[in-house]
Amino acid sequence: MSRIAYVNGRYLAHAEAGVHIEDRGYQFADGVYEVVAIHRGRFFDEEPHLDRLKRSLDALSIAPPMSRAALKHVLREVARRNGIRDGILYLQISRGVAKRDHAFPKNVAPSLVVTAKRTKPTPRKLVEEGIAVITIPDIRWKRCDIKSISLLPNILGKQQAKDAGAFEAWMLDEQGMVTEGTSTNAWIVNRQGAIVTRPAEEAILNGVTRLAVKRLAAAEGIAIEERPFSLAEAREAKEAFLTSTTSLVLPVVRIDSQPVADGKPGKLSLKLRALCEEAMAR
Amino acid sequence: MSRIAYVNGRYLAHAEAGVHIEDRGYQFADGVYEVVAIHRGRFFDEEPHLDRLKRSLDALSIAPPMSRAALKHVLREVARRNGIRDGILYLQISRGVAKRDHAFPKNVAPSLVVTAKRTKPTPRKLVEEGIAVITIPDIRWKRCDIKSISLLPNILGKQQAKDAGAFEAWMLDEQGMVTEGTSTNAWIVNRQGAIVTRPAEEAILNGVTRLAVKRLAAAEGIAIEERPFSLAEAREAKEAFLTSTTSLVLPVVRIDSQPVADGKPGKLSLKLRALCEEAMAR
Repeated sequence: MSRIAYVNGRYLAHAEAGVHIEDRGYQFADGVYEVVAIHRGRFFDEEPHLDRLKRSLDALSIAPPMSRAALKHVLREVARRNGIRDGILYLQISRGVAKRDHAFPKNVAPSLVVTAKRTKPTPRKLVEEGIAVITIPDIRWKRCDIKSISLLPNILGKQQAKDAGAFEAWMLDEQGMVTEGTSTNAWIVNRQGAIVTRPAEEAILNGVTRLAVKRLAAAEGIAIEERPFSLAEAREAKEAFLTSTTSLVLPVVRIDSQPVADGKPGKLSLKLRALCEEAMAR
Repeated sequence: MSRIAYVNGRYLAHAEAGVHIEDRGYQFADGVYEVVAIHRGRFFDEEPHLDRLKRSLDALSIAPPMSRAALKHVLREVARRNGIRDGILYLQISRGVAKRDHAFPKNVAPSLVVTAKRTKPTPRKLVEEGIAVITIPDIRWKRCDIKSISLLPNILGKQQAKDAGAFEAWMLDEQGMVTEGTSTNAWIVNRQGAIVTRPAEEAILNGVTRLAVKRLAAAEGIAIEERPFSLAEAREAKEAFLTSTTSLVLPVVRIDSQPVADGKPGKLSLKLRALCEEAMAR
C-alpha cells in the first residue's frame, strides 16, 4: 500500500505531494500543526487536539480551512487510505499561498496537508531503562503556547541532544527554570511524591498527553503541583519523566549525565505510563 | 513573459513551482533565505549577501546546495529568464526533504528555490514625507542574527504595524532597548549628529544595507555609534530612519504616533539615502 497524503482537497501519492514555493508555511513558518495518535484504529484524544488546533489558528488569525466535522472526515479518510491502525496522523495548516510580503495577505485560502504513518511501539528498552536528557538554554520565541511550525530552535535542540547521546533536551529559561523538552513536556516527582510540571502559559506548549496525565493522576489521587521547577530541583527529584503524543510517558533517568535518584525509572512514572496505555486501550 | 522559478535543478513556471510537503522548510522552518536587489540589471551587494547566506547555513549546519559560482549562475539565469532589470531576487535554502523527525536527517540534499520579481521604485511619498513606526515587545528567538525562514513573530509584528497604519514595528527587548524592525534595521541620529544603531550581535540581523550605510557614512566622516538605544532616546532623537534591501533608507518621522523632532524627514537620513542610491547606480 503506497502512502497517500491529503493536500488542499486532493488525495495524492505521498512522493508527489507538494505545496507551492510561495506557501507562507514555506517562506515564513506561518502555520500550525497537530499530531494525533491512532491506536487500534481509534484516534486518541482527538477532540483536545482539535481544540488546541483551533486555539493556535485563532492566535495567528488564520481561518480554519474547513469545518471541524469536515476535517475529522479528512483525518479518517487519510488514515483509511493509508491503512493505519497504529500510528500517527500529522496535520498542518498554513495561511496559504501569496506573493511574498510579511503582512497577512487578503482573500487567501489556508493550506491543509494531512499525512499518516505507521509507527512502531515505543521500544520497551526506553520504558524499562528510561532515557537521558541534556539541558540547554531556551532560545525560543515567547509564544511557545502556539503549536506553530516555527520549530527551528526545537530541531537545533533535539540535534544537540542526539549529538550528546540523549533522547531529549530540556530547555532552561533565564531564571534557570525548566520550560519543556524540544517536542515533549517535562515533569518531576518531588520528595513529597507530588508530580510537578510547569503551568501551561506562554512559555510552553500545553501537551495533550500532559493534559491526559494531569487528568489520570488526579483520578488516582496523586498530588499535582503546576509550577515552574528549577534544574537544581530536577537533579534532586525522586523521579523525572517526559510526555508527548508519540512517547506517551517516558521515565527520565539521567539529566546532563547525572542520575536522577538511583538512575532507574521511577515507580510513579511507570504507573502514569500504564494509566495512559489503559486510557488509550479503552 | 510568464514568471519562472528555479527549484532544485529545474526552471519551472512559477504557478506550478512546488516543494514536497515534507520539505523541512515547510514542517520545521529549517532553512534560510536572502533577498538581493537588482538595479539596472546589476546585483547590488551580491557578495555580502552570499557571505551572509554562508554564515546562516553554517550556523544551522546546512550544507550549501552548490558552489558559490554555480549559485551565482543560477541567480543570473533566474533574473534573465524573468527579464528583470529592476527588482529583487529571492533565494531560499532548506535542509531538504526527509521523513518528519526533529533531529537532522542524514544524506539529504538541501533544497534551493530562487525566484525573481520586478519591483516598483519606492514611492517618493515615503521618502519625502517619511514613515511611521510603532513599537512592540520583541518576542523573537535569541538567534536573530541567522537569516532563517522562522519568521512567524516578524509577520505578526508587521501585521500589527499595518493594523496601526504604520510602515514598520520596532521591537523592544526586555530592557526597553530597540532591537530592529520586523524586516528592517533601526537607526537614530542623536543630538550630537552621530548615527546610532544596535551592534550586530545575536539580537538582530546584520542587514546588508546596514553595512552599506555604515560604510558610506564612514566615508563621509559621519560619526557612528554602534550601541543599543532605548525607545526614550529614539523619541528624543534628532532623526530616525530604517534600512533594508527593499526600502534602502527611509526616514522615520513618527514613533507610536509621536513625531520625531519636527515630524519631517531628517537631513542626514535623506543624505544617507542619496548616498545609497548613488552607490547602487555606480
